[in-house]
Order: sequence, then C-alpha cells, then structure tokens
Amino acid sequence: VNCEVIAVGTELLLGQIVDTNSSWIGERLATAGIDSHYQTKVGDNLDRIVSVLRIALERSDAVIMCGGLGPTQDDITREAIAQVMGVPLVRHDDIVEVIREMFGRRGREMADSNLRQADVPEGATVIPQRIGTAPGLICPVGPNGERVVYAVPGVPYEMEEMMDRAVVPDLQERSGDRSVILSRTIRTWGLAESTLAETVQPRLDELDRRGNPTIAFLASGMEGIKVRITVKAADEANAQQLLDEEEDELRAMLGDIVFGTDSVSMEQAVGRLLADQGLTLAVAESLTGGMVGSRLTNAVGSSEWFRGAIVAYDSQVKFDLLDVPEGPVVSEDAARAMAAGVRKVLGADVGLSTTGVAGPTEQDGMPVGTVFLGMAIGDHVEALETRLPGDRDRVRQFATISVLNLLRLRLLEATRN
Amino acid sequence: VNCEVIAVGTELLLGQIVDTNSSWIGERLATAGIDSHYQTKVGDNLDRIVSVLRIALERSDAVIMCGGLGPTQDDITREAIAQVMGVPLVRHDDIVEVIREMFGRRGREMADSNLRQADVPEGATVIPQRIGTAPGLICPVGPNGERVVYAVPGVPYEMEEMMDRAVVPDLQERSGDRSVILSRTIRTWGLAESTLAETVQPRLDELDRRGNPTIAFLASGMEGIKVRITVKAADEANAQQLLDEEEDELRAMLGDIVFGTDSVSMEQAVGRLLADQGLTLAVAESLTGGMVGSRLTNAVGSSEWFRGAIVAYDSQVKFDLLDVPEGPVVSEDAARAMAAGVRKVLGADVGLSTTGVAGPTEQDGMPVGTVFLGMAIGDHVEALETRLPGDRDRVRQFATISVLNLLRLRLLEATRN
Repeated sequence: VNCEVIAVGTELLLGQIVDTNSSWIGERLATAGIDSHYQTKVGDNLDRIVSVLRIALERSDAVIMCGGLGPTQDDITREAIAQVMGVPLVRHDDIVEVIREMFGRRGREMADSNLRQADVPEGATVIPQRIGTAPGLICPVGPNGERVVYAVPGVPYEMEEMMDRAVVPDLQERSGDRSVILSRTIRTWGLAESTLAETVQPRLDELDRRGNPTIAFLASGMEGIKVRITVKAADEANAQQLLDEEEDELRAMLGDIVFGTDSVSMEQAVGRLLADQGLTLAVAESLTGGMVGSRLTNAVGSSEWFRGAIVAYDSQVKFDLLDVPEGPVVSEDAARAMAAGVRKVLGADVGLSTTGVAGPTEQDGMPVGTVFLGMAIGDHVEALETRLPGDRDRVRQFATISVLNLLRLRLLEATRN
Repeated sequence: VNCEVIAVGTELLLGQIVDTNSSWIGERLATAGIDSHYQTKVGDNLDRIVSVLRIALERSDAVIMCGGLGPTQDDITREAIAQVMGVPLVRHDDIVEVIREMFGRRGREMADSNLRQADVPEGATVIPQRIGTAPGLICPVGPNGERVVYAVPGVPYEMEEMMDRAVVPDLQERSGDRSVILSRTIRTWGLAESTLAETVQPRLDELDRRGNPTIAFLASGMEGIKVRITVKAADEANAQQLLDEEEDELRAMLGDIVFGTDSVSMEQAVGRLLADQGLTLAVAESLTGGMVGSRLTNAVGSSEWFRGAIVAYDSQVKFDLLDVPEGPVVSEDAARAMAAGVRKVLGADVGLSTTGVAGPTEQDGMPVGTVFLGMAIGDHVEALETRLPGDRDRVRQFATISVLNLLRLRLLEATRN
C-alpha cells in the first residue's frame, strides 16, 4: 500500500502557517513501513481540492487529507471527498449530539455552523472525535472500495491522535504486511551532534553493514539530541528485543548524557531520581521567570517532590525574600544565595536557582547569555557559570534545561556513593 | 501569471526535514501579487519528478522547483526539467570554472561530482550562483516559451537570495501586474471560532461580494483565534490604508476580545496596559506551576512592571507564605487569598492567582479542568471559576492565558472609568 498526503488550507499556500502536519504524517507512515511518494498543498477551493484528490487517487492506493474539517464556510474537505466519491453528504444526528455535548461541557452554546461538521459522505466511516469537534472520515473510493481517502483535522494534536488511533492501524491492515517496524528514541543532553556522532561511529559502521537496526540523529534544540533506533522484525516481541539490545549498546557508549527514552522528558528524569531518593525540591528563578517550575510541574506526580518556586524577577525580591546579599544579582554568589534561600523558605531538601542575562541587552556589564546556575543540597551549596547561545527565548530555555541537568547529574552521582 | 511550487527531496517526504522553503516562497509570491494555487513535495525519483512537473505545467503558467541541484547522484532536478523540455543537458565550461574557483577560495579541490552542477538544459538561462555552488535555472517550456520552470537550490539562504534577485523579478515582469498584496492579523481571545465567525458574518458577506479585502480565521489553540485581513492594492500606501480601514471595521464588531495585531502576544498586551497605568504585578501560581511568570517575562521590558511570582505548588506553601486559610486549596476563597497574599508579599500593585485541577486525576472532589482565577487590585479582590478543556498541558496553558486575559479586561475597564 502506498499513501500520499494532501494538506488543505489557503493559509498554507500563503506561507502564513508552515505545514508541519505533512512532515509529521510522512514520518509516521515511514515508521509504519508505508510508502509515501507525494505530498500536496492546496487552498480552500472546491474545484482545486477535487482535482488534486483525483490526481492522487490515480497514482496512490490511499490518500490522507489534512485540514478543512472545521465549521466555517471555507472548510470544504467533506464536500470535495463526496464529489470525488460521487455521493451526497448525509447529516449524522449522533455526531450533532456529540458536538452539542462538547459545547455544553464547556458551558457554551453550539453555533449552527457546527452542524456542518456532522455531514458525512454516504458510505464513509466516521472516526469519532475525542479532542476537537471535527470527526475524521474513512472513505472508500472505487467500485470495490479498493482505494481509500482519510480525512483528519488540521489542528496538530487532533490530527496526531486520530492518525495513531485510526488511520495508521487501518493502513497497516490494508497493507497486509505483517512485519513490524518499531522505533525508540534515546534522549541525550550535553554533547554537540558531531561529537555524539563520533562517539558512536564504530557502532554506526557495523549497523550500516547489517542494515537493521538503523540509527538516526535528530538535533532538537532545547530538547537535546535524540538518537532514534528503528528496527524491523517478524513480530513485536522480536522487535522489542532488538530495540532493547541496541539501546543497551548505545547507552554503554554514551553514558550519563542519556537522560531517558522516548517521551521521557528531562523533568521526568529528574522527578524519578528525586522520588527514588525521597527528596523534595524548591526553585528560585530570575531570568527563567517560572520556566523551571513550569517544566517540573508538567511531570505527572510532581506534587510528590516539588514544593514550589519563587520567581524573584525584581532584585528587591531576591534581597527581601531569599536573603540574597545586596550587590550584583548576576553572579555566582547570588546564585548560591538564591538556591540556599529558596530551600530554606520553602522547606525543601534541595534548592535550585537561575540568574543571568537573557537579553536583548547586557546587564551589570555582563554579556547576553551569561547565566549562573545554583544548587543547595543540605550543607552543600554550589554555583556554575555558563554562557548560552541564541536569543532571549533560547537563553531562557537552555538555562532551564541546564539547571535541571545539573541536578540530574548530582543525583546520579549520589546513587553511586 | 500564476505560479506553483515543487519541493524535491526524499527527506521531505520522510519528515526528516520540514519543508519551510515552500512556505517562504508562498509568502513571497503572495506579497508580490502572484497567485499560487498548489505546492507539491516529491522524492528524488526521476519518473515521479517528471510526472509532477508535467501536472504542474498543465495548470500553472510558472513552476518553481526547489532542491535537487546538488552534486550527488540523487540530485536530478536538472535531468527532470530537460526531459520535460525535450532537450539535452549541455555542460557549461564557464560554470565549471566558477565552481572550481569557489572551491579554490576555500582551499579545497573541486570533486568531479560537482561537474554535474554545470549541466544546463539546452535553451535555459542560468541564474549565477552567489553563495553555494549550484546555479539556478530559468527554463522556457512550450513552442513559444509561454510557460516557465525556475530551478533554485534547496539550501534556504541560497534559495531566498536567488528568489529575490532573479525569480520574483522575472515573474513580475511576465505578469505585468504591479499590484501589492499585504496581510494583517487581528488576535482575539474568548470566543469559539464559530461564534466569532457569526459575529462578523454581515461583514464577511459584504466582502465576499467585493472580493477585496479577504478575511480568514485561524484557530491557534492557546494563542487564541487569529483573524487575518488580506488586501490587494495598487501600491503599498493604498494597501496599508485598506488594512487600517478593515481593522477598524472588525475591531468595532469584535470589541474587547481583540488583544492585539500581528505578533503582539497576550503578555505584551497586558504589559503595555500595566506600563501605561504605572502598575506593578505579582503572581501566585498553583496548577500553572510558573507558566504565567514564564510568559510574562517573555515580554521584553517586563522588568519594568513584573515583580515576581510565588509558585505555591504544595498546599503548605500556600498556607505559610501566602496566608491562605487552611482548607480546600481548589476554591474561590483560596484563589482570592493567593492573589491578595502574593500582592502583599512581593509588594506589587496587582496580584493574580491560579489554582485548579490540571489532572490526570480529580482532586478534592473537583473534576479535571476546574480552575479558579484570582485577582487583587488595591482593596478589590475577586475570583472567577472556569472549566477548561483538554489534557494536563492544555488545562495549564489555557489557565495561563485566561488569567492574563482576566487582568487585561479589568485594566481596559479601568481606562474607561
């Protein structure tokens, strides 16, 4: 089975939105072992949508249409599919009720325009909506339904959920290919991509000769560098075993720069170590302005080990509330005092702190990107100076993950003593 | 003249690279007043490139091909264009010399594979390369050259330079149209897309009859709903005036749900109002865990009006530091006490607070999504209960923007009293 993608929306052609959906879908199809040779973007124009859909169905077994399922008059993906199928749209009362309920739960009245989202081409199967108001569609095309058009919403998280729940499984069933392709991502922080690649080069050379598993590097900014292992095997158990073996190989080469796999974030890695060691945490933030607390509380279960944070943005707040000595607040001393102070004020075992210059202009004679990270565990208080690249937002993001990584490395060391 | 875009590269289909080039080109074409109805991505496969190019030339006057001009064997855009033109590739010795010189200046020897970059379809015009080693191409198609194919490199800054220097001017000359197209985005928070659309429906109907300006809605999750105005005019001054007039029309219909235009964020809108009124702000955060502070400090100049925040994640921190009365912490009373408490502790004019249930499980008998927002200005203290949709992250994001919007509305009211 091969499957192509059509992204619908005039805003995509005008460059007002970058079409990341097609890339996401392309990656998912590749991982599932489904060939995808073309991707098309087209505006909110019925004749043109119909024409690209016809072209796609001539050369591909399956087509995923993304976007144009909203409630407004320019959302016409449903109409285009019905026209290509040569069938009318039929309003489904049960979908109307689901949408009405969704609005009700939010204390809102459903607008009449939302009724259009309950229109389904005759003969199509509905993919029930779980997040947004638009259901997806599975539409058989051709006398024996030998081709298929899927319609999914253009809102990324709605689309992604529906792809994984309904579209990819349906495509895999059609393909009849029973071999299983699985991926696992090893997440790292602290090495440049080129250095990381050199570290694992011998292993890459060996895998190149074998052809399976394959390894790819994805530089992901403040999410670190991801090392993705992809394996192909006869069944899931074998695929999982290959993934486990390869993960062990790479972890042995990469050491402590690995902080987790797949969706495990830096904050989750830190949270697990804190929970294992029965420690609580408090944070004093200056340039990060709440980002460290925000990331930590993103981890489910953070209420077990996170006490809270003090965002001491104004210098006076640092002096008054955290007992930082009067003087330059972008300094090692200030970082130490903030970490020790917040640990005491919030009654935690561990205190972390960030202070520095996010920009756009220098401060206290310090250039943009100068950041001090502080940590206090019991009587041990330390500070680390670092210089971070990029604009205001990137400096803040990198400071956030850097201070979390500092804590992670110290907690790892503690487990070895 | 209308012009479509074909991006060439298997890595684009696999989702290893997001195709930002097509978006960039799309925006440039729109600004230049050139219609663009389709964008296609295709892999490094000769037959498939030829087939999409033929389809494009049937429906568009001009085609921009982006990528596939490199020196390696899978760079075959030149071959595909020559095949569609029905002409051979001819090696240009002068291009060979330019490439050899470029390598020489970098102290390198030119590889033989780079010779392929000097191959030009017979009858095509060369766009001299200035940055990378690949020249661009302008290729007339058809008996009288009534259609045209442009080839530009896939490296973004090489492509962008060539587009502005050669491709867009050539297209404008062919079109003979000197009109200018400009867009402006009005940013809103607080209405569902369908309700918003109904509110401005009379205006949309009127514009539909006129055809200029045009209006589009973009639902952007926690960034609210964007209303984009696009105008076409004889020159830039007239285009700006049309934008101004249409913005006034829409603002009059939409009222206070408009918080800014173009890149103005909610935190910038709030920051401006605070600065105008000479007020300072402090925030007490529970479920948002630092997100409110993080967004506020993202605004350049926030140090003028933002004192700081207390992330009181643990209930005891609420009682001890913010003077919240012991009892249920997901409540109106707690939200009020937090807002008043943080205002006092951090010495600010205004206190804001968030407390609620982000999930994944209910808390104190309150369902996931229950959120209380508090605000204290002087002696005035209030709290608002709301029910927010989505998963943990979305509940937190929506709580963040909702509390900022609450403050914005109150500050707007203050300017009217």
